[in-house]
Amino acid sequence: MSVFQVALKKVVDDSYEIETGFHLEDKLMEDLKKGLAGNIKKYAVITDSTVQKLYAEKICNLLQETGYQANLFVFPAGEKSKTRETKEFIEDSMLEQGYRRDCCIIAVGGGVVTDLAGFVAGTFGRGVPFINYATTLLAAADASVGGKTAVDTPLATNLIGLFNQPQKVYIDIAAWKTLPERQLKSGMAETIKHACMADHSFFYYLKDNMEKIMKIDQASCEYIAEMNCKIKYQVVEKDEKESGLREILNLGHTVGRAIETVSDYQLLHGEALSIGMTAQVKLAVKLGFMTEKEAEEVISLLQMADLPTAIPEYIDREELVKKLYTDKKVRDGKLRFVLQKGIGNIVEFEEGVYATPIAEEMAREIILGLP
Amino acid sequence: MSVFQVALKKVVDDSYEIETGFHLEDKLMEDLKKGLAGNIKKYAVITDSTVQKLYAEKICNLLQETGYQANLFVFPAGEKSKTRETKEFIEDSMLEQGYRRDCCIIAVGGGVVTDLAGFVAGTFGRGVPFINYATTLLAAADASVGGKTAVDTPLATNLIGLFNQPQKVYIDIAAWKTLPERQLKSGMAETIKHACMADHSFFYYLKDNMEKIMKIDQASCEYIAEMNCKIKYQVVEKDEKESGLREILNLGHTVGRAIETVSDYQLLHGEALSIGMTAQVKLAVKLGFMTEKEAEEVISLLQMADLPTAIPEYIDREELVKKLYTDKKVRDGKLRFVLQKGIGNIVEFEEGVYATPIAEEMAREIILGLP
Repeated sequence: MSVFQVALKKVVDDSYEIETGFHLEDKLMEDLKKGLAGNIKKYAVITDSTVQKLYAEKICNLLQETGYQANLFVFPAGEKSKTRETKEFIEDSMLEQGYRRDCCIIAVGGGVVTDLAGFVAGTFGRGVPFINYATTLLAAADASVGGKTAVDTPLATNLIGLFNQPQKVYIDIAAWKTLPERQLKSGMAETIKHACMADHSFFYYLKDNMEKIMKIDQASCEYIAEMNCKIKYQVVEKDEKESGLREILNLGHTVGRAIETVSDYQLLHGEALSIGMTAQVKLAVKLGFMTEKEAEEVISLLQMADLPTAIPEYIDREELVKKLYTDKKVRDGKLRFVLQKGIGNIVEFEEGVYATPIAEEMAREIILGLP
Repeated sequence: MSVFQVALKKVVDDSYEIETGFHLEDKLMEDLKKGLAGNIKKYAVITDSTVQKLYAEKICNLLQETGYQANLFVFPAGEKSKTRETKEFIEDSMLEQGYRRDCCIIAVGGGVVTDLAGFVAGTFGRGVPFINYATTLLAAADASVGGKTAVDTPLATNLIGLFNQPQKVYIDIAAWKTLPERQLKSGMAETIKHACMADHSFFYYLKDNMEKIMKIDQASCEYIAEMNCKIKYQVVEKDEKESGLREILNLGHTVGRAIETVSDYQLLHGEALSIGMTAQVKLAVKLGFMTEKEAEEVISLLQMADLPTAIPEYIDREELVKKLYTDKKVRDGKLRFVLQKGIGNIVEFEEGVYATPIAEEMAREIILGLP
């Protein structure tokens, strides 16, 4: 019997920049010419059927004009495309077009595109570099920091994937103007969640500037894009040492994700999250972590962004409770919730524990009691 | 316009142990009880239809007896199972059985099992720990060091996957006794490749002890298992700094892989590699890097292991040449070969360059000239 030691300790630097601005296509080309992706000459632009005409074709053309090889890989827009089948389709298309290990992927689009393209990049040729060109508020709030990539399967959301950091993230606020109003509002839900969770004064900034933001005012949009990155980054960075903190990003998501599924994706992610946030503040009031007035302020901010705070008629509330409590995450009949503490804070139940088990009866009471 | 810096520089320690011995199932249980996989209580044992009865069921039972939850996930034996479809099947089966992020995967089998299970582990729940229990000589020689995991697609071999290091590797030499003789011989090809590439005296050790090895003599088998790890580890470790060195592991594989494909996997990987090694030494002689006598010694060692050194009748040699030179790796009509220098060394063509372009006419001459 013998033991052989494989020593693989090393310093890894996955640092990257997030650049926020209006129309960043030319900046992307400049960065590439300056070596953002090393010596790579082949680019795979991955996008969905909505963003294709709006942004991705332009970026693909610019790449070709700059002298690179570039091809467009397009899948149907929507959360339902975030599957292993779509990943396979993109991989096969890339292989057919002669892409091998010496390429770079550019994801152009919202959260579904960046999640999926980041995952493709992580396993294509055992990992090729990728760049995120985020065109939605949701992608700016959610997908630009943290390195989470994934697909859904019939049995689980976001459970097949990997952590993969991009070379750089571009947040093009001009693209928000091309968003259907409903998508823009949906994106605000994650921004409001960030404020509720971590920044009291940012919450009131949103309250004071909601109208300007909804009109894509340059200064306020740049500010919220930056604040989203900053808040999420602080959590993710601390979580490297203090595992568990990252869980606070799930604020409002316990009920939110269940509603999203039960609605069969008729509700957008942010809309479902908004209802989940409403349930969460009601629960926080019940458990004494928020005042009625604070809860009302959160609900009113969600309503200012024209987000739903009531459960749609077509959703069976009992089915929703059942969905929550048959989830695999439920232990001993109790589901764990992250809860808001006042405005701009999170309840820490014990040292390093940011979620508390809630029994089915209490969750049912809250859900049945929602408007 | 604003730029936000995400700093993600950190020290990563992926070090692990490779333990070689006879019957290591109990040692695995001991290690788990001592915390090899942390606090994990759920184990997914992934194996193929051949190894299932021989080893995997036993390990699964031992896990249950030790008080862990354990389930067996079995796919049909053979290289043809190394696909995205099999990966998906395992993922869905694991999800159905309630596996989520808090599990550990144990791969029990040869190279196909460890490649596939390591890839599943890398993306299940965005990465769960895994342990390799290698039951073949080939897995010991090839899959235990380097962290390469992957699947094949219709258009490319090993191109979808990731680098993923196990928690520990067990090389159970007792399992080699259960191998069909043809599999054992096939595994010797990678061992001989390692000797040819990096260790003159190991080459002669193999020559002097081939008969004992083939009878699974304990001391000599432990020695070759250890030497395989050592040689491969040195290459992989140096490659961390000196990118490109790793390419020398492709010795004999350029022709080998093409023959494997053209034979439609009638030839085992090691058998195809053995023919590839024969082609490679002939080429090295032609280019003046080896003497005729040295080449004969290599061919005779392959034959001592009862490995093929001639191209089977059923393979169309012109098709083989065509297959080689229509591969995407071919640039300007030339394919790059790694070549042996004497016995126990590799040709370094320029500083850090270990492969040289060979024109189609020369490769054809060598291939048509093989027995």
